[in-house]
Amino acid sequence: MTDRIRGALAPVLTPFNNRLEPDTERFIAHCRWLVDKGAGLAVFGTNSEAASLSVDERIALTDELLAAGIPPRKLMPGTGACAVSDAVTLSRHAVKNGAAGVLMLPPFYFKNVPDAGLFAYYSEVIERIGDDRLKVYLYHIPQFTAAPITLNLIEMLRKRYPETVVGAKDSSGDWENTRAMIDHFAADGFDVFPASESLLTKGLSSGAAGCISATVNMNPHGTVQLYEGWNSPQGEALQVNADVIRKVFQSAPMIPAMKRVVVEFSGHASWSTVRPPLTALGSATTASLLGQLRQADFTMSGYPRAT
Amino acid sequence: MTDRIRGALAPVLTPFNNRLEPDTERFIAHCRWLVDKGAGLAVFGTNSEAASLSVDERIALTDELLAAGIPPRKLMPGTGACAVSDAVTLSRHAVKNGAAGVLMLPPFYFKNVPDAGLFAYYSEVIERIGDDRLKVYLYHIPQFTAAPITLNLIEMLRKRYPETVVGAKDSSGDWENTRAMIDHFAADGFDVFPASESLLTKGLSSGAAGCISATVNMNPHGTVQLYEGWNSPQGEALQVNADVIRKVFQSAPMIPAMKRVVVEFSGHASWSTVRPPLTALGSATTASLLGQLRQADFTMSGYPRAT
Repeated sequence: MTDRIRGALAPVLTPFNNRLEPDTERFIAHCRWLVDKGAGLAVFGTNSEAASLSVDERIALTDELLAAGIPPRKLMPGTGACAVSDAVTLSRHAVKNGAAGVLMLPPFYFKNVPDAGLFAYYSEVIERIGDDRLKVYLYHIPQFTAAPITLNLIEMLRKRYPETVVGAKDSSGDWENTRAMIDHFAADGFDVFPASESLLTKGLSSGAAGCISATVNMNPHGTVQLYEGWNSPQGEALQVNADVIRKVFQSAPMIPAMKRVVVEFSGHASWSTVRPPLTALGSATTASLLGQLRQADFTMSGYPRAT
Repeated sequence: MTDRIRGALAPVLTPFNNRLEPDTERFIAHCRWLVDKGAGLAVFGTNSEAASLSVDERIALTDELLAAGIPPRKLMPGTGACAVSDAVTLSRHAVKNGAAGVLMLPPFYFKNVPDAGLFAYYSEVIERIGDDRLKVYLYHIPQFTAAPITLNLIEMLRKRYPETVVGAKDSSGDWENTRAMIDHFAADGFDVFPASESLLTKGLSSGAAGCISATVNMNPHGTVQLYEGWNSPQGEALQVNADVIRKVFQSAPMIPAMKRVVVEFSGHASWSTVRPPLTALGSATTASLLGQLRQADFTMSGYPRAT
């Protein structure tokens, strides 16, 4: 038996108020809703605008979530950072608080760094923390980091830290790469998460552990149903339904689009706020997005409304 | 009259000890040597491995420099960060301590961000600090950030903050771009710094304000002489001499190469330490580099040696 975190995880959207400060109350409400729908919480991922948050802001938000009763075993916080000292601070905090795992970006300022440099970075974090409870998920998103998590790097890390480096998120969008990760490492207990529910049926039938996908923020129930029922008679229909919603959000800049839609279902206008350098959705794109969602009968059922 | 910082600035190398912690003593000694040679200190630039330092580490190192008597008017700290809150913290600290200016990277995680997003980012920092003493130098290094400081962005920022956004470092290596920045904005008091002393004669004759160049760490005296004497009878020879040294360092990965050379002249072996994801210079490259430097009669004259 394993108590590894699996299934459908959301890279949780981070709400800001009109002064661009994290809105703790909205954040907790959003996380509660996601957990109630059965989703896991990959807080501080790309779609969380984690790069736009300071270390202190990420720690404070995590503390608030835990104080609000969100179960730590539902959490896979993003703790990667350009500075190894920041990655250590964030990862240590996650481990100390019982998070199920940490999703670690490689450092992403320097370009063309060799696998040996990335190995040294992950090693440094793991060695400094020195805690068996640390479970690291490598974050492959080369279109943002220019520092790919290669099969070679995974092999080096698995060999040295087999109990600690236990999985990866593949945000490359390249199914061949996801499949190669699964084929090489899944049988030994390495959990691979593609970054889209559109790959769930394909992924789960090949040995993936679930998905960590932006649109789980919008459609947690449908994605969890798909994760649980992909191999049932309803599987195909569940996949089609999830794909329809995913495609609508992909038609616009994803982060501002999702935030704008939460405004509709929460009644909180400030939910549309993004931190620079992102920009809010334009009005034409908003109209088109909302129109498509209405046509698809989309709803965020049970979402807590402004009172 | 202006008290703007100009001339030859070094993106100051950051020494680490064998535990990868910043080595304050070596850092102060290196900065003192640079200032004694007439160079300015662009601490926490790319070549400082600033991306690999936490906010707290950067602030602590700045405080130590000031406590050691380094004049704040010699400082142009790098204060850009992916998180606007970090950029505010760092820039505010610089202003409070009397730094001559701050060199601000744009946020560099998200890709394809519009000028409006970068404008919002810089505006947010400037407005939150709300201090006339703040002098922002925009950092154009698209090969690392994928967020170019376009002429359009400069124009927007100059229009809104003419007394605050007062210059740029152009690390593109594209002279046509540097010239365009100068041609468009220098006459109105916008100080453009190319990122190599190899562009000093060309740059200064066109209206540049100096250079902020990695190899000022190695050759501060020669670069300061060139800055002051480019238009004298010795100008051409000074440019040739500076170019020779620059070219040798460009033959190897620049940051580990420079650090390895400081080992030779300081006698401190730990100077070669880099933080991951960078990796130390291999032995063959080191041998070639040191051989070329001997042939060029290179020396870091007066560098403080281990006792």
